[in-house]
Amino acid sequence: MAGEKITTRAEDYSQWYLDIVNRAGLSENSAVRGCMVIKPNGYAIWERMQRALDRMFKETGHVNAYFPLFIPKSYLAKEEEMAEGFAKECAVVTHYRLKSVPGKGIEVDPEARLEEELIIRPTSETIIWNTYKNWIQSYRDLPLLINQWANVVRWEMRTRLFLRTAEFLWQEGHTAHATSEEAEEETRRMVEVYKQFAEDYMAMPVLVGPKSEGQKFPGAVYTLCIEAMMQDKKALQAGTSHFLGQNFAKAFDVKFQSAQGKQEFAWATSWGVSTRLIGGLIMTHSDDQGLVLPPRLAPTHVSIVPIGKNDEERKAVVEAAQKLKAAIQALPRDDFFGYEPIEVKIDTDFDKSPGFRFNEIELKGVPVRVEIGPKDLAQNACVIGRRDIPGKDGKLMGIPLAEAPARIDALLREIQKSLFNRAKAYRDASLHTCDSYAEFQERIEKEGGFFLCHWDGTRETEDKIAAETKATIRCIPFDRPAEPGICMVTGKPSKGRVVLARSY
Amino acid sequence: MAGEKITTRAEDYSQWYLDIVNRAGLSENSAVRGCMVIKPNGYAIWERMQRALDRMFKETGHVNAYFPLFIPKSYLAKEEEMAEGFAKECAVVTHYRLKSVPGKGIEVDPEARLEEELIIRPTSETIIWNTYKNWIQSYRDLPLLINQWANVVRWEMRTRLFLRTAEFLWQEGHTAHATSEEAEEETRRMVEVYKQFAEDYMAMPVLVGPKSEGQKFPGAVYTLCIEAMMQDKKALQAGTSHFLGQNFAKAFDVKFQSAQGKQEFAWATSWGVSTRLIGGLIMTHSDDQGLVLPPRLAPTHVSIVPIGKNDEERKAVVEAAQKLKAAIQALPRDDFFGYEPIEVKIDTDFDKSPGFRFNEIELKGVPVRVEIGPKDLAQNACVIGRRDIPGKDGKLMGIPLAEAPARIDALLREIQKSLFNRAKAYRDASLHTCDSYAEFQERIEKEGGFFLCHWDGTRETEDKIAAETKATIRCIPFDRPAEPGICMVTGKPSKGRVVLARSY
Repeated sequence: MAGEKITTRAEDYSQWYLDIVNRAGLSENSAVRGCMVIKPNGYAIWERMQRALDRMFKETGHVNAYFPLFIPKSYLAKEEEMAEGFAKECAVVTHYRLKSVPGKGIEVDPEARLEEELIIRPTSETIIWNTYKNWIQSYRDLPLLINQWANVVRWEMRTRLFLRTAEFLWQEGHTAHATSEEAEEETRRMVEVYKQFAEDYMAMPVLVGPKSEGQKFPGAVYTLCIEAMMQDKKALQAGTSHFLGQNFAKAFDVKFQSAQGKQEFAWATSWGVSTRLIGGLIMTHSDDQGLVLPPRLAPTHVSIVPIGKNDEERKAVVEAAQKLKAAIQALPRDDFFGYEPIEVKIDTDFDKSPGFRFNEIELKGVPVRVEIGPKDLAQNACVIGRRDIPGKDGKLMGIPLAEAPARIDALLREIQKSLFNRAKAYRDASLHTCDSYAEFQERIEKEGGFFLCHWDGTRETEDKIAAETKATIRCIPFDRPAEPGICMVTGKPSKGRVVLARSY
Repeated sequence: MAGEKITTRAEDYSQWYLDIVNRAGLSENSAVRGCMVIKPNGYAIWERMQRALDRMFKETGHVNAYFPLFIPKSYLAKEEEMAEGFAKECAVVTHYRLKSVPGKGIEVDPEARLEEELIIRPTSETIIWNTYKNWIQSYRDLPLLINQWANVVRWEMRTRLFLRTAEFLWQEGHTAHATSEEAEEETRRMVEVYKQFAEDYMAMPVLVGPKSEGQKFPGAVYTLCIEAMMQDKKALQAGTSHFLGQNFAKAFDVKFQSAQGKQEFAWATSWGVSTRLIGGLIMTHSDDQGLVLPPRLAPTHVSIVPIGKNDEERKAVVEAAQKLKAAIQALPRDDFFGYEPIEVKIDTDFDKSPGFRFNEIELKGVPVRVEIGPKDLAQNACVIGRRDIPGKDGKLMGIPLAEAPARIDALLREIQKSLFNRAKAYRDASLHTCDSYAEFQERIEKEGGFFLCHWDGTRETEDKIAAETKATIRCIPFDRPAEPGICMVTGKPSKGRVVLARSY
């Protein structure tokens, strides 16, 4: 397996993605249909994402808590849209005991049937608002700003590692407010946090704005989202923030006494991102050589490759590598790496050829590679290679070892910026304005991309476009110009352009 | 509710525990039988525990990964002892879809029955070893040192917040090794990590050693454990580390090619601690005033209470509080608080009386309280109170504000040590040596505690003691003296004393 070529993007984009996930050791399918195993290299990326997001949530006043995995079946039914949206993909627990049956092994004990079936949470609004009922009596109890890191299950029929799996990991924020205005502010604040995370950490440019009625979350008044473009020019919904109005407060009877002494229903938001982001990260930056990781989310920032033919040479270059590692890790810490040290690994696998070792490091997406051979060492120097520019163009030759730590530190910051700029240029080059439905139909099929089009605002037209082109309204960008026009499908009036694309 | 007295330990120990959990906002029962909601104050303690443990796991070479929540029913059957041990408490998923039935609401769709039922993981040995089968081919793939942070479900009939719940959060380490020796070393290493965590972070002294055959983990060759004494003198199993031999490798056919070219089964360990530790933390240190938290696990280390009767006074004391907070947070960071700043809160709830505010801070277990009133401020001083010594004895009067940060820093370290010493003295005072079964029966009932007794090593005697006294063998301490003797029940020879106690 090691050493095998990765399928190129041009050959087969889907297979390229699976090859990267597999070869970089990120995740794999498990024996349970649709459920993935997140392998150590993949989980390490998730840990970095969690750490950054968790800090951003806390800086915006949120605290973490944990609610049950199980939801009584009847709770789901209390909010009608939610029931409709999730009922078809719920894993259901019906029994609480197994028993040994001689000759037949282990069987479900028919006497241990639950009175009311439990579903595995597909999302936790219902169980959380049932809990909030006891926590909210007065306006003084508000706002409640709570987040949960958890696993959820949605029994998807067609799954794809990270992007769509039956079980996935995520965070879900659930807030309660005294007024509609406050809840709407929160909804907007959190989608902006997601945008900031996507752009500053993932180096992934996103469009931000509401979903159309047809694409919103079941149970929401409206949904805000961040949408990113993958390298195959399809859209990935990367995070959503929902204004839930009083829907869940009414479904679970959550009232509070206002400052004016009136009984009122609380206002709600919820917002989440998931391990799907890892899929987005891969498809935004990686290339035909393997994974490319932005430094702020890379578990290893620097791989040092000492090179030597015999024990004497090897001893000398490994010593130099260890000194360099210590010098890099002693650099002052700052916010860029979350006040953690720069992570450095030394590759001492001398049994393998240098070329093989370089390829493995490229494959894993380590942002910076340092080579130290006997000739470099003779000059107290090293070669520094950047992952985002593979090959000779990305190599800095003859860097004095004494200068290397500062150069590497600066280079990591430069790579972070450069990956974002490249992804943004790529996205912008495929962000088209289009006023003809015929042209749209042809181009979405032939070249793909995001299309800014006029739409009459009806569900009917949205459904027609989806049926005929497999494209959906990804978002109604906040920053679209006020530009009334004519719907490209029906010719009816439009308030402004929306973003259409095929999506994951 | 606020202001209500907590039940004292002397009055009703069980109710005292529940009062603390409730009043300090740590957790509550949910609408789902046996499942708890971990509230923000409780979850913040878990986050601190996770951070410290995760660092210790990584320092001992482990990485994190994530495996599926679901386990095919047949997997459980592959390891016989495990099947017997867990079958009776498994939540079983039988269906993957609900549907709306007009007039009846939402029902389980009988057509969406799974071919093979899935159980919710009660522990993950089976699904993980089924995965390891593909990861382990050669001795070069070993050791595999993997940990998982996850939720698990064991359908317990009698539950108790934190101590025994149907769903709980935990970490489970699962390692694979080329030799029995290495796996046994790992088993021992991890129980020592748990001991270090319990003593250095939780300030909770523990006994360490193997479980008896009757108390070991189903599927293990042997189980090592840490056992702590709660204030009611009952034992709490706080963490376990299992040597699994080749049991799971054989059950899932995990073979590797050894350095000598032979096909061999891999050797396994698993080890875990859970949110149960929060229950242990409460019952080790808390008092009749409320929660007492050791500083290294306290989400808030210092609460500053400015006191003033009018706006002018209040403005001045709040300013002083803010300056003090900034000075405390600017103290150099070190390993003691995991290189995080000391967490300081300022209580500005002037509507409440100072006494009420002090009580609330005591109830929540904040290790250090600082009072700044106008008289203190006139002398540029403050009063510092320590939570572990409530009342006047724990107060340092007239501490100059300029000296306060250093004093508080030192005091937090002192409190950590002092809590451990107090808990150890308490435990040691109830650690009895006993050679008569009649005496044991009387004392375990009347005074409780840990009893070091001779036992003949048979399951039969162990079961007899349990049936007659409700006490079990908690552990066979590593540090017991080599002291052959006579079993207190049967008079048969004993190799040394074991620890007997009633337990949670």
